[in-house]
Amino acid sequence: MRVSGKDYRTIWMEGPFVYMIDQNRLPFHFEIFCSDNYHTTCEAIRNMTVRGAGAIGAAAGFAMAQACLSAPPGSYPEYIEKARSTVLDTRPTARDLFYFADEVFKSGLNGPRQALIRAQELAEENAIMGRRIGEAGLGLVQDGCRIGTHCNAGWLGLVDFGSALAPVYLAHRTGKKVFVYVDETRPRNQGSRLTAWELLQEGVPFTIICDHTGAWLMARKKIDLIIVGADRIAMNGDVANKIGTLEKAVVAAEFGVPFYVAAPTSTFDPDCATGSEICIEEREGMEITHSTGLNHENNSVIAIETAAPGSTAYNPAFDVTPARYITGFITDKGIIRPDVHAIRALLN
Amino acid sequence: MRVSGKDYRTIWMEGPFVYMIDQNRLPFHFEIFCSDNYHTTCEAIRNMTVRGAGAIGAAAGFAMAQACLSAPPGSYPEYIEKARSTVLDTRPTARDLFYFADEVFKSGLNGPRQALIRAQELAEENAIMGRRIGEAGLGLVQDGCRIGTHCNAGWLGLVDFGSALAPVYLAHRTGKKVFVYVDETRPRNQGSRLTAWELLQEGVPFTIICDHTGAWLMARKKIDLIIVGADRIAMNGDVANKIGTLEKAVVAAEFGVPFYVAAPTSTFDPDCATGSEICIEEREGMEITHSTGLNHENNSVIAIETAAPGSTAYNPAFDVTPARYITGFITDKGIIRPDVHAIRALLN
Repeated sequence: MRVSGKDYRTIWMEGPFVYMIDQNRLPFHFEIFCSDNYHTTCEAIRNMTVRGAGAIGAAAGFAMAQACLSAPPGSYPEYIEKARSTVLDTRPTARDLFYFADEVFKSGLNGPRQALIRAQELAEENAIMGRRIGEAGLGLVQDGCRIGTHCNAGWLGLVDFGSALAPVYLAHRTGKKVFVYVDETRPRNQGSRLTAWELLQEGVPFTIICDHTGAWLMARKKIDLIIVGADRIAMNGDVANKIGTLEKAVVAAEFGVPFYVAAPTSTFDPDCATGSEICIEEREGMEITHSTGLNHENNSVIAIETAAPGSTAYNPAFDVTPARYITGFITDKGIIRPDVHAIRALLN
Repeated sequence: MRVSGKDYRTIWMEGPFVYMIDQNRLPFHFEIFCSDNYHTTCEAIRNMTVRGAGAIGAAAGFAMAQACLSAPPGSYPEYIEKARSTVLDTRPTARDLFYFADEVFKSGLNGPRQALIRAQELAEENAIMGRRIGEAGLGLVQDGCRIGTHCNAGWLGLVDFGSALAPVYLAHRTGKKVFVYVDETRPRNQGSRLTAWELLQEGVPFTIICDHTGAWLMARKKIDLIIVGADRIAMNGDVANKIGTLEKAVVAAEFGVPFYVAAPTSTFDPDCATGSEICIEEREGMEITHSTGLNHENNSVIAIETAAPGSTAYNPAFDVTPARYITGFITDKGIIRPDVHAIRALLN
């Protein structure tokens, strides 16, 4: 990704230090957060300094590598086993987090050098997968295409390039006219804050819409195609993704709008048969009853209460979209059908 | 409605003065706004100091009555004709606004006394219709019922009692256990601000959800029934209501959840054959990119920017739900089917 003329990745490691674009500070401040130990990296996953399936996967891998680096030689295996639990406990839904952490843990059993190499490899692969998803999905994005997307599955959702937005960026760079309807994505506004910020950086025309506006646009044939990302994909093609994805998929099916899920191979979970097995994270109601933003009076970012004081809010962070609502998966190995045979073939 | 132990209506007229609960100040401040001339009342409709189909209907009627009171005797008909245009231009979508304004205008041609009487009559009727909608819908709300609603079609949406929430309040008062899932209702949060505030006042258990969460709840059979209000209903049963209503209706149909629209007879428009004839108001994108709420640091209500600076947003205030997604209309004259024959019978 290119921010103010300079190339960045969402997250990277240099020596024992993990660097990440602070996604809680965006879009008002572009800052790099540096973590010098695995506990801090885990906290960055929990508090969403880094978010997005691929990006938290890389963060989990780097956190494991940091743990291996700082493990006392006398109790190395116990230390990294405990670190593994801590990493896996940060957030429950995204498959990449578990995959990256376990891969680096396994390599790390042979020593910190191996852990570092594996963590770097996986992060690099994630970026490359983003680029390949872009290439695989490019043919779906016709000239003049109006694309709907939910949450942020762009640069910031992976190590680089993105998943859902990768074909859009590639289409734009190859001279196709595209327009993006950006779902605000309550309650944390990853759409209006992160996706909008990325599209502004890249110069892709877009407008923000409220999360319930899609049906009205689709009913009037204003959206040609929807592409979203995924946090975990079951073997039968059920998809866990940001809350609201199911609703969008149901509405797209009703109005005949193709609904694609873009994800790297690492997001498909061979140990998960159907979506009903996926653990859905529930977050604090305060994310809904309060909003964070820029106070122009003193140029500070503050939180305000937007709901009736005393209200509670129910805040599942993800939902599960059954495979029957999905037109296809855009993967780093091409576009595949949302069924167990195609997914098995992808993983083999 | 009963606020802090005292009875109120959403809007009322005393002498030449129109009083209304300031819905822009809620839920953080409960204040009565007083308008002493029709221009100020029109501005209160435009800036949503008063909102909700029935409440702005009453406001429009009262504004016309104020115009008739202050019209110079020498140019009475010209003056009130001009005032009528001003009132009708405030907001384009809700049927009640046009109906109330025209009714009071016609009475007002015979003088200000007649205008005042008609405006009061219509406001009183609107409150009574709310009560009757509650009685008509009571049978739909079973003991233990979990009800979804969108926007605010409660006390504050009508002169009193509400439309969508009237059966819920009545069920609660008659001892039935009810639980309400309150759609936040972006961008102006009429759900999390106004509906939640009303439910807190009335002691009805509820929780706020994001606007795209309904599908996830319905897929897991957590919502038994959805009731929403309406701004205008065409003769074929198509409904204009708050943006997001269509999406909720499509999803409810998919998951087999009964979807009712509650509205007084005055919301049905005999001059509107189908929903395609309804003018949909588009409001400023800033309502989406900025949020208003309580800053606890200094107890002031402020606006903050929540989206990536430089973004645009598309903000239609309403959408049209085709009749085929609607289970039935809860009216002051009973529950009717969403078709032209039933609606004609209702209006005759």
